[in-house]
Amino acid sequence: MERPRHQGMTKNTYMRWRLPLVCLLWEVAMIVLFGVFVRFGPEADAHWEEEKREMNLTSDIENDFYFRYPSFQDVHVMIFVGFGFLMTFLKRYGFGAVGFNFLLAAFGIQWALLMQGWFHSFKSGKILVGVENLINADFCVGSVCIAFGAILGKTSPIQLLVMTLFQVTLFAVNEYILLNLLHVKDAGGSMTIHTFGAYFGLTVTRILYRPNLEQSKDKQGSVYHSDLFAMIGTLYLWMYWPSFNSAISEHGDAQHRAAINTYCSLAACVLTTMAFSSMLQKKGKLDMVHIQNATLAGGVAVGTSAEMMLTPYGSLIVGFICGIVSTVGYVYLTPFLESRLHIQDTCGIHNLHAMPGLIGGIVGAITAAAATEDVYGKEGFIKAFDFTGTYQTRTPSVQGGFQAAGIVVSLLMAFAGGALVGAILKLPVWGDAAAE
Amino acid sequence: MERPRHQGMTKNTYMRWRLPLVCLLWEVAMIVLFGVFVRFGPEADAHWEEEKREMNLTSDIENDFYFRYPSFQDVHVMIFVGFGFLMTFLKRYGFGAVGFNFLLAAFGIQWALLMQGWFHSFKSGKILVGVENLINADFCVGSVCIAFGAILGKTSPIQLLVMTLFQVTLFAVNEYILLNLLHVKDAGGSMTIHTFGAYFGLTVTRILYRPNLEQSKDKQGSVYHSDLFAMIGTLYLWMYWPSFNSAISEHGDAQHRAAINTYCSLAACVLTTMAFSSMLQKKGKLDMVHIQNATLAGGVAVGTSAEMMLTPYGSLIVGFICGIVSTVGYVYLTPFLESRLHIQDTCGIHNLHAMPGLIGGIVGAITAAAATEDVYGKEGFIKAFDFTGTYQTRTPSVQGGFQAAGIVVSLLMAFAGGALVGAILKLPVWGDAAAE
Amino acid sequence: MERPRHQGMTKNTYMRWRLPLVCLLWEVAMIVLFGVFVRFGPEADAHWEEEKREMNLTSDIENDFYFRYPSFQDVHVMIFVGFGFLMTFLKRYGFGAVGFNFLLAAFGIQWALLMQGWFHSFKSGKILVGVENLINADFCVGSVCIAFGAILGKTSPIQLLVMTLFQVTLFAVNEYILLNLLHVKDAGGSMTIHTFGAYFGLTVTRILYRPNLEQSKDKQGSVYHSDLFAMIGTLYLWMYWPSFNSAISEHGDAQHRAAINTYCSLAACVLTTMAFSSMLQKKGKLDMVHIQNATLAGGVAVGTSAEMMLTPYGSLIVGFICGIVSTVGYVYLTPFLESRLHIQDTCGIHNLHAMPGLIGGIVGAITAAAATEDVYGKEGFIKAFDFTGTYQTRTPSVQGGFQAAGIVVSLLMAFAGGALVGAILKLPVWGDAAAE
Repeated sequence: MERPRHQGMTKNTYMRWRLPLVCLLWEVAMIVLFGVFVRFGPEADAHWEEEKREMNLTSDIENDFYFRYPSFQDVHVMIFVGFGFLMTFLKRYGFGAVGFNFLLAAFGIQWALLMQGWFHSFKSGKILVGVENLINADFCVGSVCIAFGAILGKTSPIQLLVMTLFQVTLFAVNEYILLNLLHVKDAGGSMTIHTFGAYFGLTVTRILYRPNLEQSKDKQGSVYHSDLFAMIGTLYLWMYWPSFNSAISEHGDAQHRAAINTYCSLAACVLTTMAFSSMLQKKGKLDMVHIQNATLAGGVAVGTSAEMMLTPYGSLIVGFICGIVSTVGYVYLTPFLESRLHIQDTCGIHNLHAMPGLIGGIVGAITAAAATEDVYGKEGFIKAFDFTGTYQTRTPSVQGGFQAAGIVVSLLMAFAGGALVGAILKLPVWGDAAAE
Repeated sequence: MERPRHQGMTKNTYMRWRLPLVCLLWEVAMIVLFGVFVRFGPEADAHWEEEKREMNLTSDIENDFYFRYPSFQDVHVMIFVGFGFLMTFLKRYGFGAVGFNFLLAAFGIQWALLMQGWFHSFKSGKILVGVENLINADFCVGSVCIAFGAILGKTSPIQLLVMTLFQVTLFAVNEYILLNLLHVKDAGGSMTIHTFGAYFGLTVTRILYRPNLEQSKDKQGSVYHSDLFAMIGTLYLWMYWPSFNSAISEHGDAQHRAAINTYCSLAACVLTTMAFSSMLQKKGKLDMVHIQNATLAGGVAVGTSAEMMLTPYGSLIVGFICGIVSTVGYVYLTPFLESRLHIQDTCGIHNLHAMPGLIGGIVGAITAAAATEDVYGKEGFIKAFDFTGTYQTRTPSVQGGFQAAGIVVSLLMAFAGGALVGAILKLPVWGDAAAE
Repeated sequence: MERPRHQGMTKNTYMRWRLPLVCLLWEVAMIVLFGVFVRFGPEADAHWEEEKREMNLTSDIENDFYFRYPSFQDVHVMIFVGFGFLMTFLKRYGFGAVGFNFLLAAFGIQWALLMQGWFHSFKSGKILVGVENLINADFCVGSVCIAFGAILGKTSPIQLLVMTLFQVTLFAVNEYILLNLLHVKDAGGSMTIHTFGAYFGLTVTRILYRPNLEQSKDKQGSVYHSDLFAMIGTLYLWMYWPSFNSAISEHGDAQHRAAINTYCSLAACVLTTMAFSSMLQKKGKLDMVHIQNATLAGGVAVGTSAEMMLTPYGSLIVGFICGIVSTVGYVYLTPFLESRLHIQDTCGIHNLHAMPGLIGGIVGAITAAAATEDVYGKEGFIKAFDFTGTYQTRTPSVQGGFQAAGIVVSLLMAFAGGALVGAILKLPVWGDAAAE
């Protein structure tokens, strides 16, 4: 950044050629790979008129675009404005947070379109993309934004791009294992996005531990206007989370239900966050950081189960618990992680994404295991869990077991991947955030 | 709030246990009531496949979710970002406005889902919720946000929550009288939301009158950045108001028409606001507060009639008048209300919601009374005013009379309810904003 | 504005009566013209039930409202928040930019509804409006917002309104020539909005050249919070640009495709902007102004071709090039234009809109010329370019030629119109921005 007070961005002379080179080379690689692999899916291709006849659709309104585009735009706002501005509560990193989030997300979505495309939309040698691919790419990058929250202030832009490259790759692999091999449901990504992203980031920040970072703690303070900017991030995440959890659910009742469950969970979460924030602080004052972060935990924690028949009161209970867990985490666990385990969690993602993500995975497993044909209806039951083909005979309790296995796989991928990527980021070639 | 300069939030030691207790107890009550009463409506339930067949729908796209979800999200942004940030124009209350608005709205929507559900969506002992319920809950809370604008700086968080509880209850009763007993149309809520909410809040602030509050008037000034934050609130309210007024209109032409009428009214309102702001100020300078508030009056004033055949030029006329009325109100009426009637209207809701809401009710009554089968078409006429069943024989002029009665009922409910709730808030048990 | 530090708004005593008079007279004129000409289109009229039968539509969801309203709202946000806040990066003009943008856009959309209505929606003596008209009015005003970016700080509010009146008029004429006479495709407006708007504004600013304006250059600096406000503008433009380019495309695949192409182009543009910004600055620092502006060039440059079969990799290539062109323009061309050609381009619209707009026109011409029935399918080919009726026999290469002609016409209209309007604005009757 041009002005010295924008501390978040780098003024390393050595960087002068490295960041441009990496950006240009990678973008050229994207162009080549997109040229070889990526084409329009049938609903975005000019052959759509023929496709429509084949699919027996009578109206253009049945194009998937109209089912998902409004949700896509909400998710898009969450990734670029939501995550970007949420991190401005740390005054020192204000612009850097927004700017680097912009850079890593713009790069990440391209690589995610390829990685997820190879796994899920690969037909006759081509990746066929539509609006659902755009949403999934945003989701994938969301997990990188989460991990960024743990290492904010400790990495150079190049290191961020390297982390993005690896994390998107590992995300796609993990997602493939969960959704395709384990046949697990996770539409809002409690496991694939939040649990994976958060524990990945926490492992990386542990490896990049720098004892002297504590000395600059005073720079981590927030100020009045930073708090209002951060509230923009918070509120957009909070308001649009129902779109996030419903964006890639099945058409019809599943999208509808996911939005309602998420709305309820988030509402409850605000009240318990306020309650515990007030209770745990000296003199009963509310802590801004809790309001900016813990109020969102309710959205994370219904990420797996929102499209299921969790019911509104079930959602309220989940939100109730997560507001408490997350706020208590900020007060007691974050300092403990830093002082004892040397995990410097800049934005407190352990409280906002890691723990609520785990809870979300568990709630999903329980909700799936408790499913009955009575509650879902015969057709609804099969549709909700996609119990067709190979999975025709899977029972709810077995599904619950696989859901639980999905949590474990996500955790293992996060720890192993985070350790690997952390080690790579320690290589001296990437430049140093100390110059920041 | 943690830092002393966030004056909007409270540092009362006595509060330490009261706010947490109220939040937790009320949230537990919500969970119990939701557990007993709230279930998914047919379009959000997993039995939707069967429902679809019964309703003779051929595509998932005909689920109400796709008709209303984009508008719901716009309304959601208006309630949480729009109302929250609009109030930041008062520097002293910046964060408090956003934070407390968040708290009361999150609590209010839950209670509104129940109250409105009992009145409108109660079937076989259960409240069946869908996306329209979420919009209505947001609407209901909107009226609380409006009232909050009058008492900003004069209440503790607990008092706000108590007011929310009572106001939501009274809102639901008033809405039931208007929509069900009087069979009145009010899709954008000129009467139910704005007239009721504003006069309710003004009555409460009259009762809570504190002479010495004037002394701190210098703290009510706005500053440069506050003005830009407030403009975020203003613009999101202004841009999304067409969604607000069309969100719960009938599918098809009514939603379409409501959006167009509102768009026109708001555009006209900007020009007359600028004109009168410049004309009434010394030296022709524009006053920020007018631009931030009076430009929105055009949206309020077509709240009842937007879905009717008001026509674009009719909308321009309404917007034209309201920009003038609202700006003149800020210049002459607000100081008069405070000095003579002891009504301290912190954000000037009398100018933005009360008067335009009344105008909106009157415009609605006139537009309904002037309706003809020629203008609406035979089918359109019946559909627009729901002249079916018991109301089959109601004529436009009778409908106009009932619409007018709706204004009177809303006013009476607001005055009586506001007096009651104001008296309750004066009880010494709730803590005191003086500590703020 | 009331407080002296809001330099963007005027405190000219002479203004006291002029601005109000202009606003009120023009609004009255709008009311009269709307009263004579504007009515609801068939999909917003209460006769819709009959219309539906005639058009053989089975569901209300096939009302154009549901195809376009979410995109409309995104475009609306781009015009009022996006363009308004983007300009706040110049600290001196922060509030003035947002406030005047609000004023000119609110006036402009009314006049645009009339002008575009007479050209495109005029039936039996009436302009029939629907949601597509609202989008087109916003688009038209977008070109005024672009031109405003060149003259920011050099005009009084009255001059802005006069410019808006003339520019909207010329925009509608130019658009009519391109879309109707030349039968050119330009759904995202690379030619009609960006090329026309930018060169129009640059011509006006050349004519209004004031040498001493350079002295106040220090006031043009940006500061930390201004940068964060500007990023709000940038990000909303960047995120919603896929909606902008797809908003008025044909239903179905064309809207879907336009969104995907724009998403890809914008993502690539971010990386090359960051690369060249870092490369061209001393010490490899990133320049905020580049990130706030050049990252958007990719959206401008696929404005014509996004709805065509540009393909995702084609979009990446366009974005790749435009990020470079735009950033290089900010570094080398803007200073050159000011010092040698006396074109003071306050916000750098030559880099963000003019050059990328030209590139967009050229890319559109090439993409159209390269179209084949093989790529589009027989039906898709005819639908994509509307090769029906008179244009039944037009070939892709001929279409490419007409597209190229569209660029030339837009440029000529911009230069001639800009010169005319610039001369009009120099008349002494309009008041002077020097008083600001």
